[in-house]
Amino acid sequence: MWKLTSSFLDPDVLPVEESLHTLANGYLGIRGCFEEGYPHQYTSIRGTYINGFYDLVEAKYSEKQFGFPEVQEKMPNLMDAQTIEIYLDGERVSLFNGSYGNYIRTLYFDKGYSERSFEYQTQKGENAFIRFRRMVSFQVRELFLIEVEIKYEGQILVKSYVKGEMSNYTDDFDPRVGEYAKLLDWKSSSLIDNVYMVMTARTRNTDFEVGCVVYHRCSKEALMGIEGVHEPKMVAIYSTKGSIALTKYCAYSDGRHNQEPVMYRGLDIIKEHSAMCFDEHLEMQRIYLKDFWHHSDIKIYGNELIQQGVRFSLFQLLQSVGKDGLTNIAAKGLTGEGYEGHYFWDTEIYILPVFQLSQPKIAEKLLIYRHSTLEHARKEARVLGHKRGVKYPWRTITGRECSTFFPAGTAQYHINGDIAYGFIQHYLQHGDLEFICRYGAEVIFETARLWLEIGHFYEGKFMIHNVTGPDEYTCIVNNNYYTNVIARYNLEWAVKFYRLLKQKNPQALDEIILKIQLVESEIDEMVKAYQNMYLPYDEVLKIYKQDDAFLEKAQWDFEGTPESKYPLLLHYHPLTIYRYQVIKQADTVLAHFLLEDFTEEVSIKNAFDYYEKVTTHDSSLSSCIYGIMASRCGYYEKAYDYFLETVRLDLDNTHGNTKDGLHVANLGGTALSVVFGFAGYRIKNESITLSPWCPKTWNGYEFMLQYRGRQLQVKVSDSVKIELLEGEKLQLKVYGQQYELDKVLRIPLEGLKRDGQSSNI
Amino acid sequence: MWKLTSSFLDPDVLPVEESLHTLANGYLGIRGCFEEGYPHQYTSIRGTYINGFYDLVEAKYSEKQFGFPEVQEKMPNLMDAQTIEIYLDGERVSLFNGSYGNYIRTLYFDKGYSERSFEYQTQKGENAFIRFRRMVSFQVRELFLIEVEIKYEGQILVKSYVKGEMSNYTDDFDPRVGEYAKLLDWKSSSLIDNVYMVMTARTRNTDFEVGCVVYHRCSKEALMGIEGVHEPKMVAIYSTKGSIALTKYCAYSDGRHNQEPVMYRGLDIIKEHSAMCFDEHLEMQRIYLKDFWHHSDIKIYGNELIQQGVRFSLFQLLQSVGKDGLTNIAAKGLTGEGYEGHYFWDTEIYILPVFQLSQPKIAEKLLIYRHSTLEHARKEARVLGHKRGVKYPWRTITGRECSTFFPAGTAQYHINGDIAYGFIQHYLQHGDLEFICRYGAEVIFETARLWLEIGHFYEGKFMIHNVTGPDEYTCIVNNNYYTNVIARYNLEWAVKFYRLLKQKNPQALDEIILKIQLVESEIDEMVKAYQNMYLPYDEVLKIYKQDDAFLEKAQWDFEGTPESKYPLLLHYHPLTIYRYQVIKQADTVLAHFLLEDFTEEVSIKNAFDYYEKVTTHDSSLSSCIYGIMASRCGYYEKAYDYFLETVRLDLDNTHGNTKDGLHVANLGGTALSVVFGFAGYRIKNESITLSPWCPKTWNGYEFMLQYRGRQLQVKVSDSVKIELLEGEKLQLKVYGQQYELDKVLRIPLEGLKRDGQSSNI
Repeated sequence: MWKLTSSFLDPDVLPVEESLHTLANGYLGIRGCFEEGYPHQYTSIRGTYINGFYDLVEAKYSEKQFGFPEVQEKMPNLMDAQTIEIYLDGERVSLFNGSYGNYIRTLYFDKGYSERSFEYQTQKGENAFIRFRRMVSFQVRELFLIEVEIKYEGQILVKSYVKGEMSNYTDDFDPRVGEYAKLLDWKSSSLIDNVYMVMTARTRNTDFEVGCVVYHRCSKEALMGIEGVHEPKMVAIYSTKGSIALTKYCAYSDGRHNQEPVMYRGLDIIKEHSAMCFDEHLEMQRIYLKDFWHHSDIKIYGNELIQQGVRFSLFQLLQSVGKDGLTNIAAKGLTGEGYEGHYFWDTEIYILPVFQLSQPKIAEKLLIYRHSTLEHARKEARVLGHKRGVKYPWRTITGRECSTFFPAGTAQYHINGDIAYGFIQHYLQHGDLEFICRYGAEVIFETARLWLEIGHFYEGKFMIHNVTGPDEYTCIVNNNYYTNVIARYNLEWAVKFYRLLKQKNPQALDEIILKIQLVESEIDEMVKAYQNMYLPYDEVLKIYKQDDAFLEKAQWDFEGTPESKYPLLLHYHPLTIYRYQVIKQADTVLAHFLLEDFTEEVSIKNAFDYYEKVTTHDSSLSSCIYGIMASRCGYYEKAYDYFLETVRLDLDNTHGNTKDGLHVANLGGTALSVVFGFAGYRIKNESITLSPWCPKTWNGYEFMLQYRGRQLQVKVSDSVKIELLEGEKLQLKVYGQQYELDKVLRIPLEGLKRDGQSSNI
Repeated sequence: MWKLTSSFLDPDVLPVEESLHTLANGYLGIRGCFEEGYPHQYTSIRGTYINGFYDLVEAKYSEKQFGFPEVQEKMPNLMDAQTIEIYLDGERVSLFNGSYGNYIRTLYFDKGYSERSFEYQTQKGENAFIRFRRMVSFQVRELFLIEVEIKYEGQILVKSYVKGEMSNYTDDFDPRVGEYAKLLDWKSSSLIDNVYMVMTARTRNTDFEVGCVVYHRCSKEALMGIEGVHEPKMVAIYSTKGSIALTKYCAYSDGRHNQEPVMYRGLDIIKEHSAMCFDEHLEMQRIYLKDFWHHSDIKIYGNELIQQGVRFSLFQLLQSVGKDGLTNIAAKGLTGEGYEGHYFWDTEIYILPVFQLSQPKIAEKLLIYRHSTLEHARKEARVLGHKRGVKYPWRTITGRECSTFFPAGTAQYHINGDIAYGFIQHYLQHGDLEFICRYGAEVIFETARLWLEIGHFYEGKFMIHNVTGPDEYTCIVNNNYYTNVIARYNLEWAVKFYRLLKQKNPQALDEIILKIQLVESEIDEMVKAYQNMYLPYDEVLKIYKQDDAFLEKAQWDFEGTPESKYPLLLHYHPLTIYRYQVIKQADTVLAHFLLEDFTEEVSIKNAFDYYEKVTTHDSSLSSCIYGIMASRCGYYEKAYDYFLETVRLDLDNTHGNTKDGLHVANLGGTALSVVFGFAGYRIKNESITLSPWCPKTWNGYEFMLQYRGRQLQVKVSDSVKIELLEGEKLQLKVYGQQYELDKVLRIPLEGLKRDGQSSNI
């Protein structure tokens, strides 16, 4: 199953489908709106976005405190080029007024384009066939193409627009979407050489230019003219009798990524690429994706719907991820305006591992982005009163902290550890010490340093007070387990890399030391801190406590909380939520996933049992982790249930806000659920381990992974088959047992098998 | 010393003097600005305010969470009527340009007016004498009078204004002052009967009317005319040769307090009271104040400066306090715009006790105000997710929570206990069960109920999680000692009053029960909660812990913190401050002051020693309490040092922001420092106790107090003399020993005496 199809039109889910059918390439994203538009009464978010392009707005407070961010970065909705109106003998085509049949829209994961076609009957009873195809090019990142094909006997009029009255979607009642409608001002419209429609705009405060150049190629001589030059709405009008095929070439470019004026940049691109027809561009797209899928596909045998969900996730991740080292992957990718185009720690914990597995070059770009924002993180650390080290932001585009509600935002110091974790995992996966020298070491040293700043010794133990862990329903706490354990890891690896570089690349180390003024005594401090890191533990329950006080809190009345009151954050004051043992998302359980070697087996299972009961999964970062850890604990039914929630979250709009964009971390979580969940994959210091099981309704599954210069293929069905496709033989563990993989390993399936009796999955 | 005098003009302290020389009567307040104005380069806050008069503005958030206040109440600066310009032979009089001598300005505490006079020499060398006197009437609350007397041989021109272009003072860098400049719009100006200047305005969002009616009485026929009718600036122009005396009668009234249109209200008042000349009004003022001082004076013998500070405090408290049951006493009284006219828990803990001691009728009005806002507090409790009870706001005018930064605001649940404490103390002081029936019981039951909502049992103890205590440098904590102990008191007294009323006034109880749907089982819950209230204690230090985790926090680097970094809140992010053992103001120490019977002697002293070291006193609510408790612990030198800080805080502008208004809680603290500090006064369940000492530099001190229908006078010098001026004999304790007071008690002074050797105070 290589596609997402929808064969009937439900006006209520239109904004959701717009997110699902988004086309993007990591730079440019276009929501899947109908070219011909909608009647006014229907909600639609007609969005066009550029990753990393932003305006600054004043952060609003009625009682501003010291150090609160002064400004926020916001991703503007750009000029719209997806609008194409069709008139058949003067009647405007609309699926909402007219009658139509054989409606179908499809998003192709393997070919990288979308298609929408239908038969249309005019009020006079004349029949037409209309097909839109569109793509956002992976090969030329500025390029967005629409092809419209109309078959009709009578008079056809096509109006193809560029619209410059941009505004963003706002919702006063949901803190998760933005609240500034106007970020961009139209600047100019012009016509070059009588054929190139050029529109530019500027962000209001950052004064960045953005432009769209549009060129049309028509199957016939049908151009009536281009109107709206010097106006914020331009339109090219085509008229003919009989059939027509029109290709609209749109090149978006922006002044943050390019020095060159956007008009020239856009014109160059259009001129270079408009010689190729739509199908030729499609072929380039297919070639690009063939390579991607060759390395990154996760095959599910025997369950088409799941296969669809998994591939949808991988495809949307590829569409969303910034690949230039200047940009990252936003919480909603380029599929919507939720969280305003901001990057979060979602990247390192939920998404980066997917790319690390099979697309290390993309993974590196994500890490390079973090390295490039060190200066912002350094400044933020000073704002927060730390004399050394860096403090990465909760939400950002350029690296600047944009969170205005610090208890659930800036207080999440664990993000420093998460980013360090990303670099460390990348090193463990690919063994690239050179990358650590160039990018990783500085980040790992600087984040490690901050733990020395924020933590302190109390009764011989290293404590971290007054932070918020991943769980945003429990804020400003002392010794959040997740934070402390990831700090420990961060510190330990800072020391390891320090010693390793001293031995392997002293010159590189010296350069970093000089740059960040690191002194030997700090390394000693780090050793002392991680060796004595306090990890709160409950001796009775035999679990790590989410924080010092979590288990002393009152119980939330889950039975008395109706479905309509979820997510809690939209129905309860933070003070209410914080007071109870109720959590939004995996926290201690997530720590046990990421850093299982810091605890005992029994605590992992106990923690799962305990925390699961108090988790609402109101965050989309939760179900995938609980699923993975259910696999880990041998709760196969649960694992599969969580997986179903994960894989269908956006497809079924279970969180109710897919209209604001896809939950990109959860897309990553879907892939992780298979590899880290079902296959039990983990990266250890000296090798990798697997511990696979297979859901009963599947015939098996298969994925590729790259490990320190090797290409491996893992196939799980009745047995586990691990094949070394490229590279030297290696030692690995399966079900805890050591194996040498030379060419192929075939190991019987433990745990739940396809035909196992222990469950009916 | 019955006055505050300033005999030279320092432009830098003008805004501070404006606060110090404010005239007010609890309804209307006028800052002490120069009638003739200032050159543009000088900062001045030309303020006229009505207590409880407000506009609503939208509360601003960039990431608003559920339940955050939508709007904020703000006290507008009203139309200005204090401007009077003088021209001598065409030369405008200004102390900043001209030459002058014998300048003196005086605020009289006993007579209730202020005076400013100087000799002036024109550039031509002609001499004049000018005197302004002004008063805000205690007898007619709308009335503000200015009298100007000019002695000059040549041509005199006087321009007397009403100015309608009102705006509030703003400061982007200080969260403690407001940020909306425009709250009021000028509406109309008119001239009635050719003599009454009438100006009205309206608040922008609440649409309340406010008006000022001005009438002039002149010693001569000198009126040239009145200009600016129908304009936002009206002026009456007087011209004569030789001397002149002009009295300006201004009546302010507002549409929140009156149904009647403000114009008619103002005209009625002016017509009724303008027959009396300035000196006759002064005489009425003197009579009012004579009665006040008879009951409320605190006499300090042998130290004029201290005497001045104490009387200044009492006088400003009287000027600031709302006396109508609809209004309260703002953090800055009516002396400035800091905290935007809002009422805080400062009232119950720092100010109410002063009025309770000697002005029980005013004290009752303050408590009635809280009773009148129960409905707002009920709604806020629901917003915060509590099914029953009330939650009083951190800052408010009408009772609505106006705090937009909940960690240091709304999270202060102790305010509920503070308000209950106010009612309970009032009962203990005056024994008025009828008042409890009418106002107190409902408040005490409803606040007690909320503790049942917010607290919970853990390991058999009643815990209160996730609140902020008085100390705003330590937010969102578990089991703040202050909160828990005041909750205990609140609960215990709810039960006591329930049982007492059941016995003494079952009908009144039934009415309350019916109104608030209180059930018997809740009383049982209350008993169980207070009997098992958890009070965090450190066995090693033998002190109550400020909260569960306070003593585990890192130490603040006080030595490395330069003076310029105080107050910390203007220089450090809340996350930084919260992480350390550093406190803004008395917290546990305040609890030990209010509720000393809940702890052992040794813990009180240990707590003082421990917490004093980590207290910055960045809040003006702190030094008075530390001073009182230093007396309590026998630290006489310290007690006196703290008292000096307290009594001079505004007079010396030690916090640097007296320009924004006087620190009214600290004014209360000044009086409390003498009565509760030096005299060791406490109200116990069945009697009162005293434990006086006398600072060495004083010859003694004396104050009056009312106790359950009695009038007592306490005089401390070489001995303690307690005289029963009115009422039945009573049992009381002095230095812990029981005495019967029939007429006069004379007891030798313990502790530090005037000529004691233990200190050089």
